[in-house]
Amino acid sequence: MARTASDLDPAVAARLKRNADGLVPAIAQQYDTGEVLMLGWMDDEALHRTLTTGRCTYWSRSRGAYWVKGDTSGHHQHVKSVSLDCDGDTLLVKVDQVGAACHTGDRTCFDADPLPVSGGQ
Amino acid sequence: MARTASDLDPAVAARLKRNADGLVPAIAQQYDTGEVLMLGWMDDEALHRTLTTGRCTYWSRSRGAYWVKGDTSGHHQHVKSVSLDCDGDTLLVKVDQVGAACHTGDRTCFDADPLPVSGGQ
Repeated sequence: MARTASDLDPAVAARLKRNADGLVPAIAQQYDTGEVLMLGWMDDEALHRTLTTGRCTYWSRSRGAYWVKGDTSGHHQHVKSVSLDCDGDTLLVKVDQVGAACHTGDRTCFDADPLPVSGGQ
Repeated sequence: MARTASDLDPAVAARLKRNADGLVPAIAQQYDTGEVLMLGWMDDEALHRTLTTGRCTYWSRSRGAYWVKGDTSGHHQHVKSVSLDCDGDTLLVKVDQVGAACHTGDRTCFDADPLPVSGGQ
């Protein structure tokens, strides 16, 4: 379970609208190209560490632990900026991604082949 | 509660890894500028409607109803592509956003002033 006790700035914590597990989704975007790399999850402490260390830190839901992106792979995400959305339930983290964001070795976690869209466009 | 019965292509449905409410987060990104506009939630049927109508359709967790973005405001999201991520639990939807994505009238839902980052960069 995600922890809620944290050194996160209380003014920021007051704006966060967490899910039932105490988490908010964090979209990681390459700061200069605009490429969306992945989506991870942060609790207050993961956000605090991200803001104060300058390296993206997520809460791993599968492992139940904090996870500094790149500590195993070397593929760190150097934080450029972190923005909350209008209702405080999503974070947009602009980063400089070293190497691949995806564990498969691909640059991003999103399929290169999109799903077929039959309407509109 | 989100519905799970849907006409969504079974091959796509088989890849979706939904949360306990049957939903996956969907990141809406302006297709040409790369700007991240907002994050919404889709169940199978919302994704099916998004793919077949070419207009982003979300599940509103607060209202408990499907919601075609723009049907009230005129600020539709015309779908260019929809991609699943490597573990099937996030969607990246590239759109052409008419007007403002945010209900505040701002172009995106994310704060123009990011949170202070004290480490790294």
